Amino acid sequence: MSDHSFHGVFPYLVSPIGPSGDISEEVLTRLCDDLIKAGVHGLTPLGSTGEFAYLSWPQRRRIVEIVLAAAAGRVPVVAGVAATTIADAVSQAKAYEDLGCAGILAILEAYFPVTDEGVYRYFKAIADSVSLPVVLYTNPNFQRSDLSLPTIDRLSHIDNISYIKDASSNTGRLLSIINRVEGRMKIFAASAHIPACVMMIGGVGWMAGPACLAPRQSVELYNLCCRADWDNAMRLQRRLWGLNQAFARYNLAACIKGGLHLQGYPVGDPLPPQAPLSEEALEEVQRALHAIGALPEKTTSSS
Amino acid sequence: MSDHSFHGVFPYLVSPIGPSGDISEEVLTRLCDDLIKAGVHGLTPLGSTGEFAYLSWPQRRRIVEIVLAAAAGRVPVVAGVAATTIADAVSQAKAYEDLGCAGILAILEAYFPVTDEGVYRYFKAIADSVSLPVVLYTNPNFQRSDLSLPTIDRLSHIDNISYIKDASSNTGRLLSIINRVEGRMKIFAASAHIPACVMMIGGVGWMAGPACLAPRQSVELYNLCCRADWDNAMRLQRRLWGLNQAFARYNLAACIKGGLHLQGYPVGDPLPPQAPLSEEALEEVQRALHAIGALPEKTTSSS
Amino acid sequence: MSDHSFHGVFPYLVSPIGPSGDISEEVLTRLCDDLIKAGVHGLTPLGSTGEFAYLSWPQRRRIVEIVLAAAAGRVPVVAGVAATTIADAVSQAKAYEDLGCAGILAILEAYFPVTDEGVYRYFKAIADSVSLPVVLYTNPNFQRSDLSLPTIDRLSHIDNISYIKDASSNTGRLLSIINRVEGRMKIFAASAHIPACVMMIGGVGWMAGPACLAPRQSVELYNLCCRADWDNAMRLQRRLWGLNQAFARYNLAACIKGGLHLQGYPVGDPLPPQAPLSEEALEEVQRALHAIGALPEKTTSSS
Amino acid sequence: MSDHSFHGVFPYLVSPIGPSGDISEEVLTRLCDDLIKAGVHGLTPLGSTGEFAYLSWPQRRRIVEIVLAAAAGRVPVVAGVAATTIADAVSQAKAYEDLGCAGILAILEAYFPVTDEGVYRYFKAIADSVSLPVVLYTNPNFQRSDLSLPTIDRLSHIDNISYIKDASSNTGRLLSIINRVEGRMKIFAASAHIPACVMMIGGVGWMAGPACLAPRQSVELYNLCCRADWDNAMRLQRRLWGLNQAFARYNLAACIKGGLHLQGYPVGDPLPPQAPLSEEALEEVQRALHAIGALPEKTTSSS
Repeated sequence: MSDHSFHGVFPYLVSPIGPSGDISEEVLTRLCDDLIKAGVHGLTPLGSTGEFAYLSWPQRRRIVEIVLAAAAGRVPVVAGVAATTIADAVSQAKAYEDLGCAGILAILEAYFPVTDEGVYRYFKAIADSVSLPVVLYTNPNFQRSDLSLPTIDRLSHIDNISYIKDASSNTGRLLSIINRVEGRMKIFAASAHIPACVMMIGGVGWMAGPACLAPRQSVELYNLCCRADWDNAMRLQRRLWGLNQAFARYNLAACIKGGLHLQGYPVGDPLPPQAPLSEEALEEVQRALHAIGALPEKTTSSS
Repeated sequence: MSDHSFHGVFPYLVSPIGPSGDISEEVLTRLCDDLIKAGVHGLTPLGSTGEFAYLSWPQRRRIVEIVLAAAAGRVPVVAGVAATTIADAVSQAKAYEDLGCAGILAILEAYFPVTDEGVYRYFKAIADSVSLPVVLYTNPNFQRSDLSLPTIDRLSHIDNISYIKDASSNTGRLLSIINRVEGRMKIFAASAHIPACVMMIGGVGWMAGPACLAPRQSVELYNLCCRADWDNAMRLQRRLWGLNQAFARYNLAACIKGGLHLQGYPVGDPLPPQAPLSEEALEEVQRALHAIGALPEKTTSSS
Repeated sequence: MSDHSFHGVFPYLVSPIGPSGDISEEVLTRLCDDLIKAGVHGLTPLGSTGEFAYLSWPQRRRIVEIVLAAAAGRVPVVAGVAATTIADAVSQAKAYEDLGCAGILAILEAYFPVTDEGVYRYFKAIADSVSLPVVLYTNPNFQRSDLSLPTIDRLSHIDNISYIKDASSNTGRLLSIINRVEGRMKIFAASAHIPACVMMIGGVGWMAGPACLAPRQSVELYNLCCRADWDNAMRLQRRLWGLNQAFARYNLAACIKGGLHLQGYPVGDPLPPQAPLSEEALEEVQRALHAIGALPEKTTSSS
Repeated sequence: MSDHSFHGVFPYLVSPIGPSGDISEEVLTRLCDDLIKAGVHGLTPLGSTGEFAYLSWPQRRRIVEIVLAAAAGRVPVVAGVAATTIADAVSQAKAYEDLGCAGILAILEAYFPVTDEGVYRYFKAIADSVSLPVVLYTNPNFQRSDLSLPTIDRLSHIDNISYIKDASSNTGRLLSIINRVEGRMKIFAASAHIPACVMMIGGVGWMAGPACLAPRQSVELYNLCCRADWDNAMRLQRRLWGLNQAFARYNLAACIKGGLHLQGYPVGDPLPPQAPLSEEALEEVQRALHAIGALPEKTTSSS
């Protein structure tokens, strides 16, 4: 894998926002810096975990600026473009390229269903508008239009559409994609897949919220997979899985924000009417973090 | 029914937008004027048919300004507020009140699921932020979070939440709501319900896209229902239903925009990546319009 | 409407079965007799409420025999045929004709999805195998394959497929069917539709579980609708609706069996692993029955 | 792994049935014999692929008798029990034990939704009725009630409930089950999971329809996994996956029956109104079989 291609662990960053709507620059900067020091291979602001659907454009742009400044070129920043219209998506993508992002995570929002042709034109327009590599993002849980296998195949022939991040829970679908795109597109797992499995079938890494809370462990798992040390990879994977399970059970942003709060990052709550984690859910996250050594034993949920 | 309460036929307006993103003031003004002359009881910009999910805030505000100017106080304008966050929704609602709207159509957008408590707080915050009457909008086909019966009941106790427009296809649910809210809230039908049925069970009118294309016929149906002339109402209703069927089959905005184009209103296409109606679908809309006398016989789809 | 065509109120009968699997002849006979005396227009054993999916063929045949004997020709008996294979369905239908049923309620069970062509062939085979009129049964809540509008249209051209009972909650769909089949097929409502609405749009009656518990009130509602006395029909309809709401909320068989138990019919529990109504649900049914005069005031759930 | 525990490749057998409903003993016997000679570790009649939902009890029993006779003790036969009622399920399970089956594949059919408590009681009753090991079967695609994680955990404490075959496409769920049942229950994959992945996370084999068509290749894959030769396992797995993809796209029984026909087993068509594979689908199956060496090159679909 060349130095220039995306691979490894890309944590989905949360968006720390105060009651008045302003971004908490200090905490976001510190989080990015700590993640990079822990060895993550890239940063992904404005994925689902980043609450993109709840943020205005000025808020989104500010977040990307802060993350770019924090990364300072040490790792690539792949920022989420999300829009219902082609015009808006293209405008966001161009702005991110101008700001200095290394890649675009392309997300299609929709209210009415979109045809396969519409899906194709949306992603193509984004790719055409920038010189950056584009990561297709598909999340059937929260999006109206899933990317069909034929559409993924068609998009894989566009030069700078080089990656796909699939957030279904259907790992077999990833193998179908891999078999179909024949190297034209690389595959990132998401939190609903077992990362070690996706690496074994040919994936290049994962983009996921839990990596925000367990960056060292995630990088260790990635390295074990790269060395094909599957026994040890699975041993670690089984321990890490509890965090993904908690993440799947609750609002993604609330879960990661709650966990980061326990780790000493005052990232605030998800934007209302989203709710923060309940006490009970927070305790489950806390247990999951303790179990993998991602939280000092003395920390309690009363912090 | 007092003069001041909303009732009757409220067409959902389309949003005529050019390729560069600007609103076609002339055609929107003319459409509003024609609808009012045809007897409609109110105007509703920025419902689903109005593609709210595809428009920026400046576009939305401009549309409301144009509709208010066109209505010139002749009928109430009830504008759609739609947001994922409480902060954004409140900001929109206040702006609409300042512009002179008579009421707020309150729509909850969501990416992650919202709890009943979150749903309640969202709509309550909108109602608290204005002195206008609020219409709850529920559309289980396109929205992530439906309004449950207990939440509707709870919201009905807020003074200025006075109406609900239910866009499910479940007419029995409307009777359940009516029985539950005991007059605290009035019911508008949407295009998936049979308007005559909803009037018979106690509704006060309907808010629907097809009324844009058939305003006279809709008003005639409403008047027959008000006079309890159910025989003639059903005779007319059966003829009008074909238009609702076409509307249900296709993208709502594409359907109404296509029909208006046939009627001589150059309202443009839905915003990409949404697609305009196919030739075949357009012909079905044309037939439906012919069948109810909403299109001169000589008109052809090549116009 | 001729004497020979099906119309009016057809209660879906429960299947009273003891722990050893034998049918309680006495209680089923008494229930049928009481329903006929209350004025119902027909009897329908082995619908959803009759737990057809939980019964062996000998149990089904025995139930039909008992109902036929109880009816003694006073009202038509339309028995439910339900199978996954054409061969089994045809065998059941022929047996019911031989036993003396007046019509067949044709239900398609499926494990794998069925194509429209398969659906057509299933119902056609049933119709071809008997000389009786056939009622198409569609229940999208519990069945894998819904009947599409084109398939219904195609089936309506078969001579003895004369009725459809639609158990969706989408009343607009009924009007679409009525407009499409142009008199070739008559429409019965089910419990999720508002019967008075279905009568107004052109239905001929309803087949429903709640009519087992409220036969007199159901017949009264039917008569008001036939006289086009919509004001009084709606007054009664609104009161009766609470029973349909309870019915929709719980397991159908458990709900009607629980209510009949309160009315003095020891019909037993649904077949395990189905569960009887909880205390709380039973109280809701009891309140609904009290509210419409279908239960003496002194009756309590401890009976 | 002890000799006595189930593990490895268990093909789901088709049910070869003639037009008159009788079982084709010769072809079923030959198929079983060939599969055993190819090295499969067990045989599973009456899974989804075996069309259990379309067969009468005499047909099911006859199939199990034939399979037992063909196996002649060389491999364990684990037969599918499937019922809507506890009484019927228990009766089937006892009969299979009497016939000489080595295990029970326990399937819950339902028409109405079943509570977790009802699900638990159903499977517990089956386990209590026999001395055989029981395999829980879960197929969320075709069944009304999925097995929740807490219910699986609860059932895992029953002594002879020793296995689970999960036919969701969610491989992460399998890891969650494995983490939760802590060795009390072993995991079989199904055709929607990537077998090599399930083996890597701790599974003991797979029960699947495609193994009927590719027994040698399946056994080879299993052996590579057991030797932890993941590189070669994945190389083979990627080639075999095309068959699973075809299987997922079409009616399971039609797919395997069509493929077996190409391989020279006249197993007949699925039971009507199910349809046999279309020409186009059959060609896809043929290509998938050719690609993995499971069909001589000269064979054509006109055979």
